[in-house]
Amino acid sequence: MLALVYDGEKLQLRDDHPRPVLPPGEALVRVRLAGICNTDLEIVRGYMGFRGVLGHEFVGVVEEAEDHALIGRRVVGEINAYCGECPTCRAGRPTHCPNRTTLGIWGRDGAFAEYLTLPIRNLHTVPDDVPDEVAVFTEPLAAALEILEQVHLRPTDRVVVLGDGKLGLLVAQVLALTGGDLTVVGHHRGKLDILARRGIPTVLESEAEELTADVVVECTGRPEGFAAARRILRPRGTLVLKSTYHGQVEADLTGLVVDEITLVGSRCGPFPPALRLLQRGLVDVRPLVSAVYPLARGLEAFARAAELGVLKVLLEMG
Amino acid sequence: MLALVYDGEKLQLRDDHPRPVLPPGEALVRVRLAGICNTDLEIVRGYMGFRGVLGHEFVGVVEEAEDHALIGRRVVGEINAYCGECPTCRAGRPTHCPNRTTLGIWGRDGAFAEYLTLPIRNLHTVPDDVPDEVAVFTEPLAAALEILEQVHLRPTDRVVVLGDGKLGLLVAQVLALTGGDLTVVGHHRGKLDILARRGIPTVLESEAEELTADVVVECTGRPEGFAAARRILRPRGTLVLKSTYHGQVEADLTGLVVDEITLVGSRCGPFPPALRLLQRGLVDVRPLVSAVYPLARGLEAFARAAELGVLKVLLEMG
Repeated sequence: MLALVYDGEKLQLRDDHPRPVLPPGEALVRVRLAGICNTDLEIVRGYMGFRGVLGHEFVGVVEEAEDHALIGRRVVGEINAYCGECPTCRAGRPTHCPNRTTLGIWGRDGAFAEYLTLPIRNLHTVPDDVPDEVAVFTEPLAAALEILEQVHLRPTDRVVVLGDGKLGLLVAQVLALTGGDLTVVGHHRGKLDILARRGIPTVLESEAEELTADVVVECTGRPEGFAAARRILRPRGTLVLKSTYHGQVEADLTGLVVDEITLVGSRCGPFPPALRLLQRGLVDVRPLVSAVYPLARGLEAFARAAELGVLKVLLEMG
Repeated sequence: MLALVYDGEKLQLRDDHPRPVLPPGEALVRVRLAGICNTDLEIVRGYMGFRGVLGHEFVGVVEEAEDHALIGRRVVGEINAYCGECPTCRAGRPTHCPNRTTLGIWGRDGAFAEYLTLPIRNLHTVPDDVPDEVAVFTEPLAAALEILEQVHLRPTDRVVVLGDGKLGLLVAQVLALTGGDLTVVGHHRGKLDILARRGIPTVLESEAEELTADVVVECTGRPEGFAAARRILRPRGTLVLKSTYHGQVEADLTGLVVDEITLVGSRCGPFPPALRLLQRGLVDVRPLVSAVYPLARGLEAFARAAELGVLKVLLEMG
């Protein structure tokens, strides 16, 4: 089958990649649409040391599964395949299972292909009134919702989202739903305007000097984001980290002690509320799509996704 | 008066340091006993850029104050003198007041002298049955209690305290009171034995490879403590940072995101519960005293406090 494969040195479009064999408890999904994420771009720079088919944001249709009721259903899928038996799984933290594989990120071929497999328990049926080009945002929207799973954001909190990339724009839309006093700091007027049109205050980083916040969410995707977030955060404030990148950061940990900062690392989130927000039309993902390419032009799509100012690039498998 | 003064280059014992003039709202306290803290040692290495009389752990007697009822009372004192009027103070965070001075640390002469002054609202009367050599630990014990102000430690949590220095031994005794499954990791068998005698499990760092915890409290006072704490902490665990030192750390922030770690910086804490624990005999500070020197031998006392394996060194002013 056709697939975008990273071999540890370069990304290749291959038409001879073997169609996945169905393991017990899993479903074979024909991918319809998939999204390119910053994590995919980081993997190609060496992050996670992954080899295989990239891609973890998708919507598709089940073609094979032990549970016949699933066949023909349109689904999205949680990306961490966990063992369900270790102490971490039994403690209710399956996304942190030490035995996990992660779709297109760690030990498991991903969604930039005609077919993928995932455990049946990872799949969620997409409501009929949520079209593919909306449903494909379920995974990153769930990651944005993970912030609200971890941190109690009050409607009176002053909140700043740092970063106007794909994730920052989703996080901002989710946090705006709390009624909090939200400001989004970015670099690109055009991206910020997507939020401004929804009544969310935005400011260019060069004009953010006076800003102060109770909670800062760092979505810049860059190591410099940490110090920038600290400059805005008040003492005893909460700094949510969403950025993942290759490498370490020179950080002022003593400053975290003196100012009694709470830092919260935040990764994958819950799918059902993400689907509910999409179905209720409370998050608008359509302005986030910069381009749609057929999988056969996947390398071109990847190059486009890496360009400055480009938001979500989708791959169509049909 | 006699005082231990740091001039930015070296620590000096001076007998001509001016006795403090009493500002409105403050009390003049004759110091009876004071403790040398790691922060004092760090200041002499350049931390905070402080100049003046060092020292912030003390017990003394009020000699002058507008409120005559205070005169003759034995007191301990919270070290942050705040304005009470800025937004931070009004929000209930006076220890983070941007206009604050801090006893012997920032903009205010400290306790290694015959006299000090502090705002009356910073003082707490010491119960008669708490002797000086116990009361002098109120400030660091309050800093240990700050952890429980910030983090909900459950009786079923697996907790590790990293570090068997002065602060680590106080933190361990406080956290043992929760009934949690506590282990203290240190380098010095003799220090760890102080805890072992109280039924608190301890282990040398070289033997701590298998350890895992829900909450790790980093009290090593060293930059390396951060990575050591991370090796022990489970995904979605909480890492409490207590160490302050001069300089920055190369840190894996992406790892915090992937493992969804919560980091909590923790500094000064509440005095009333610290005094209650001391009065109830629930924390035993006496084995923590390595030596007592008269203030006139303050330089010798400082050198002793900096030696490996030495715990609390006290200065007697009487």
